[in-house]
Amino acid sequence: MNVEIIAVGTELLLGQIANTNAQYISRQLATLGHNCYYHTVVGDNKLRLRDAISTASKRADILLFTGGLGPTEDDITKETIAEFCQTSLIYHEESLRSIESFFQVTNRVITENNKKQALVLDGATVFMNHHGMAPGMAKEVNGTLFILLPGPPKEMIPMFDQVRDYFMQTYATDGYIRSKVLRFFGIGEAALETALLDLIKEQTNPTIAPLAGDGEVTIRLTAKHKLEDEANHLLEEMEQQIRERVGTYVYGYNDETLASKVIELLQQRGYTLASAESLTGGLFGDSVTAYSGVSSIYKGGIVCYSNESKEQLLHVPKEVLEHDGAVSERCAAYLAKNVREQFNTTVGISFTGIAGPTSVEGKPVGTVFIGISVQGKEEVVHSLKIAGTREQIKLRAVKHGLYHILRKLEE
Amino acid sequence: MNVEIIAVGTELLLGQIANTNAQYISRQLATLGHNCYYHTVVGDNKLRLRDAISTASKRADILLFTGGLGPTEDDITKETIAEFCQTSLIYHEESLRSIESFFQVTNRVITENNKKQALVLDGATVFMNHHGMAPGMAKEVNGTLFILLPGPPKEMIPMFDQVRDYFMQTYATDGYIRSKVLRFFGIGEAALETALLDLIKEQTNPTIAPLAGDGEVTIRLTAKHKLEDEANHLLEEMEQQIRERVGTYVYGYNDETLASKVIELLQQRGYTLASAESLTGGLFGDSVTAYSGVSSIYKGGIVCYSNESKEQLLHVPKEVLEHDGAVSERCAAYLAKNVREQFNTTVGISFTGIAGPTSVEGKPVGTVFIGISVQGKEEVVHSLKIAGTREQIKLRAVKHGLYHILRKLEE
Repeated sequence: MNVEIIAVGTELLLGQIANTNAQYISRQLATLGHNCYYHTVVGDNKLRLRDAISTASKRADILLFTGGLGPTEDDITKETIAEFCQTSLIYHEESLRSIESFFQVTNRVITENNKKQALVLDGATVFMNHHGMAPGMAKEVNGTLFILLPGPPKEMIPMFDQVRDYFMQTYATDGYIRSKVLRFFGIGEAALETALLDLIKEQTNPTIAPLAGDGEVTIRLTAKHKLEDEANHLLEEMEQQIRERVGTYVYGYNDETLASKVIELLQQRGYTLASAESLTGGLFGDSVTAYSGVSSIYKGGIVCYSNESKEQLLHVPKEVLEHDGAVSERCAAYLAKNVREQFNTTVGISFTGIAGPTSVEGKPVGTVFIGISVQGKEEVVHSLKIAGTREQIKLRAVKHGLYHILRKLEE
Repeated sequence: MNVEIIAVGTELLLGQIANTNAQYISRQLATLGHNCYYHTVVGDNKLRLRDAISTASKRADILLFTGGLGPTEDDITKETIAEFCQTSLIYHEESLRSIESFFQVTNRVITENNKKQALVLDGATVFMNHHGMAPGMAKEVNGTLFILLPGPPKEMIPMFDQVRDYFMQTYATDGYIRSKVLRFFGIGEAALETALLDLIKEQTNPTIAPLAGDGEVTIRLTAKHKLEDEANHLLEEMEQQIRERVGTYVYGYNDETLASKVIELLQQRGYTLASAESLTGGLFGDSVTAYSGVSSIYKGGIVCYSNESKEQLLHVPKEVLEHDGAVSERCAAYLAKNVREQFNTTVGISFTGIAGPTSVEGKPVGTVFIGISVQGKEEVVHSLKIAGTREQIKLRAVKHGLYHILRKLEE
């Protein structure tokens, strides 16, 4: 089918946020085999939203809206679509209860405008919102399918699982679409594309879509076939070809992350982990503790942002700090070893470096040392030069650290 | 004037990249005092681009295009606009020389399709591309202004300086536009809007635009006036009215964050800070170390993710951990006090709680205790219930912590 994504929100037209929802949804539509020919952004204005709906309904089969489902006066998406379709809005009981319980949990009294969020188009299929209050919905009117999703990506993205199921059921194709994402670390997008250029140029089935972001590259393979087994087989065959060329850089599939892989591997081995963070300031610990149940393997860490804390809490010899400096191979080795001992864990990791924007100790921005200490083994220190902003340097250092733990444990 | 931003590129419709250009340009237009009512994204398809131009030309005075100016077959923006406007494309000599020199520098031979990039609409004002090859341009046809800019943000953003100058010269307004963002914490979007409902409903000058995200709410005020002083005065007057009602929740302006305000305040006072993070796993440290030069005030912290680390590294009495539990008011108080002493700082902050998805120690998900210890004062512990996902609970706890440091220091 032919889908138009319509994002509703004056904040988009003022440039307060980027329309990342359209990007996310477009990727999903491509995987589902639907075409998207236009994205439209329109403000919280009834007249212009109506015009946008009218224009889109003439050129698309499915109008997919994001935003404007909230409690305030300028949230008008549902109301405008209801008017356009000459249908009414009714309360969705389950959503209303969910909103009420949200207010109970936080000990607040529900206001009338918050109840408004539980209104849905009469007869619509409702998508529950497990990360916020306003539900999503889908309803066909005169051959056009209207899909309404909330604007905040933290609500919209998890809800899209329900939309995907709805699409699969509603538009059952006469074949199977199977998709798989391969995740790479340690290779750039251009180098990866060059290594796979002939495969990418010849791609038809499976299609091969590389995507770069945050120092990682992914490749999404999508295969279609009348038979489910054959669709899976096409994927496997292509993955095999790719792995033969660049397999050493593959660390996982789909929604896996370097952190989730490290946690999985440590859990399998019965190992534990502690971190000493100077450069990264706590970002490593934050990345690891993003996963529930991680306390069985991650015991904690020390954010040693000052030289005093490196010396007093992590026992880096004064001589090392004075002679080599805090940003040095020897300092990284001491930090990794000593944090492991302090927390009594199997593995210790340390980060020290220059996040910028100015150089320190005469060392340029992007100088990074990552120490890894494994019980019973000699410490290893990886010396890196990382390009980017302060935020990127911190993030990429954490990813390199996780990657090197994986490689070290796989030795 | 009324501007529509049209991004041309199939990669946007496939979700390979987000339309960050539209965000950047929208912000610039708002500052320049021009209205933007629609963003459109269309693929590298002549027919559909023509339709998009036709639709946009009926509803906007200025059509601002990004993308499709490059050398390849599917770069069709210039050609399609030339056809639509019945005008011709001619070589821009300076751009052609610039492209030729680009090839000389990299020791490559210029190809015909690269020369194509120097073609511009006949009679257009040309914007030189100092970061790539394809120039931008502006040309008015039958009362509609067409502005064409390259797609890569690294070329488009620096080129926009020339566009800004062009706008200033072409549309010298008879007035000044002044804008200011007020940042709130501790109040929801709905509650804020309810408190300001009459002001928002009557808004004309200044306009009042609330926006919620990540547990914070902002309000953008935008005033217009012939006299610069009066535009500023309108802003101040409205800010005063808003502050009279909800001033206790205002923590900053524009791009300030809770973390940047805390850092600023600590620096002013000559204070230092250390953190003990259980719940937040390092996110507090990461948030503070996002700012350069922070090492003068932030000495570091301990990520005490295990009970052993709370006991051994932060000296929480065993009796407290056994009787009250790790997620308790008393534990938070000990953590804040002892981390401050360990790092020898003026202020210590601690986070302990249940990030979910499952309850621990019989305490429900979202239970959070934040301890604050200031040298020479009794510890204070804030007990909170935070709704949301694991990630949201961590993030909001950090923001509450920063907010309470601000309030504590302002006492």
